[in-house]
Amino acid sequence: MDDIARKFHSEYVTDRDIAFFELGIKLAALFHISMGMPIQNDPDTLKIVARGLEKSISCQPFVKSVRVSLQYPHPEQPDQFTKRHEYDYSSINGQLLVGEIELEYGAWRLLGKVKWNDDLNYPLMTVERCTKIEG
Amino acid sequence: MDDIARKFHSEYVTDRDIAFFELGIKLAALFHISMGMPIQNDPDTLKIVARGLEKSISCQPFVKSVRVSLQYPHPEQPDQFTKRHEYDYSSINGQLLVGEIELEYGAWRLLGKVKWNDDLNYPLMTVERCTKIEG
Amino acid sequence: MDDIARKFHSEYVTDRDIAFFELGIKLAALFHISMGMPIQNDPDTLKIVARGLEKSISCQPFVKSVRVSLQYPHPEQPDQFTKRHEYDYSSINGQLLVGEIELEYGAWRLLGKVKWNDDLNYPLMTVERCTKIEG
Amino acid sequence: MDDIARKFHSEYVTDRDIAFFELGIKLAALFHISMGMPIQNDPDTLKIVARGLEKSISCQPFVKSVRVSLQYPHPEQPDQFTKRHEYDYSSINGQLLVGEIELEYGAWRLLGKVKWNDDLNYPLMTVERCTKIEG
Repeated sequence: MDDIARKFHSEYVTDRDIAFFELGIKLAALFHISMGMPIQNDPDTLKIVARGLEKSISCQPFVKSVRVSLQYPHPEQPDQFTKRHEYDYSSINGQLLVGEIELEYGAWRLLGKVKWNDDLNYPLMTVERCTKIEG
Repeated sequence: MDDIARKFHSEYVTDRDIAFFELGIKLAALFHISMGMPIQNDPDTLKIVARGLEKSISCQPFVKSVRVSLQYPHPEQPDQFTKRHEYDYSSINGQLLVGEIELEYGAWRLLGKVKWNDDLNYPLMTVERCTKIEG
Repeated sequence: MDDIARKFHSEYVTDRDIAFFELGIKLAALFHISMGMPIQNDPDTLKIVARGLEKSISCQPFVKSVRVSLQYPHPEQPDQFTKRHEYDYSSINGQLLVGEIELEYGAWRLLGKVKWNDDLNYPLMTVERCTKIEG
Repeated sequence: MDDIARKFHSEYVTDRDIAFFELGIKLAALFHISMGMPIQNDPDTLKIVARGLEKSISCQPFVKSVRVSLQYPHPEQPDQFTKRHEYDYSSINGQLLVGEIELEYGAWRLLGKVKWNDDLNYPLMTVERCTKIEG
């Protein structure tokens, strides 16, 4: 990895700092590009829309992998979705979106996650893992 | 088709009116859910992101089919994309997005399109076809 | 009004058709640019964010006026909002957004609305008024 | 400041790490909520849309201040904007958006920025300042 934009940051900023900064950028990008996208509760739609989001975020700098799933809160969803009427669909919101992003910057490898947190009633973004890559 | 929301429109509105109204909604939904999504100029990424957008808009009422393609303005794109540096990617804007949506409402079948128009310097949405389905 | 893009539509499309088409575009643009915007339940925030959305949609072709309000479902909101903790805020979704857009195309003046519909559990877009301007 | 979500992060994550993580989240949220919003090149529109974006991002956790401006690349913009035709407007993209966000987490106060970088042809997000608040 060679970061041609490294020089634009404040001189007091370390590689580790930038790794966390970049992870925040990616998780929020995933969250906000997906909000409001129409979806319906059939496995095929949920998978293909999630693949599009993964592929999109994978273009961003320093990203190693992205996993997205769109999970309806009620897991009793039938295998076969039948639309009851034309308005029987939903759109992506913070409750539905689950995403994991792995990123490397300098010697740092981070894993971040966005997932609805019921205690906070909030689509919480967290750092799940932070490891130093042996040189 | 049975529109359970038909009664919520003004009484002076015809099925044909609603067909055009709904087509506008779908084209603008496609446009605005896609703006700012990261993409890069490799065929695989462009296709998978486009499939996600198609599948998403296909959930909306009265939609019969959706075709999306993401077209870089310079067609000389190589078959094999090689990222030159970490920031060597783009994001969806009005120049790149081409979409076609087919919709049926009542006896009306419409085809709409969104595509960058060089004369107007504008991502123009147009009605390409308007036909009455024989009863 | 002079529509320099009129010629790009199918020849079978009338001014009235285009008026409904354009109204659909504007309502869906308003809806999708606002989804996911952070907001909190204090009158000042709700008003300033709504003004920004109104001003934005007012730039679009043929729009005469735009009114947006962001309405928390529980009207017992206090006049004075006090944040209980850092995560005590929300973001715009279909339940909160109420918008009205007035548009003129050719001899047609339309009023459209987007508002959450409890019966349908859906952010319904409707045509509220359709009048012909006397020449 | 008391972060009720602190416990959800990996135990190896420091306050400084979270400060950078949160700053990235906010800059990317600002970027992605604004992409595609219609605007036109008159000072009033640009200011009111920018105020809405500032007020929105100000709701997010740990944010101390937000400054947004929408800058057309050609500074020779007239004081008085006259729309030449109905399609004579634009929408927010990475070239136009300039944002600065100040954030505090634990003992750390950071200033981040998003601004188009001509060298990279990229809407670069940077950490401009990182200071420790004296206890």
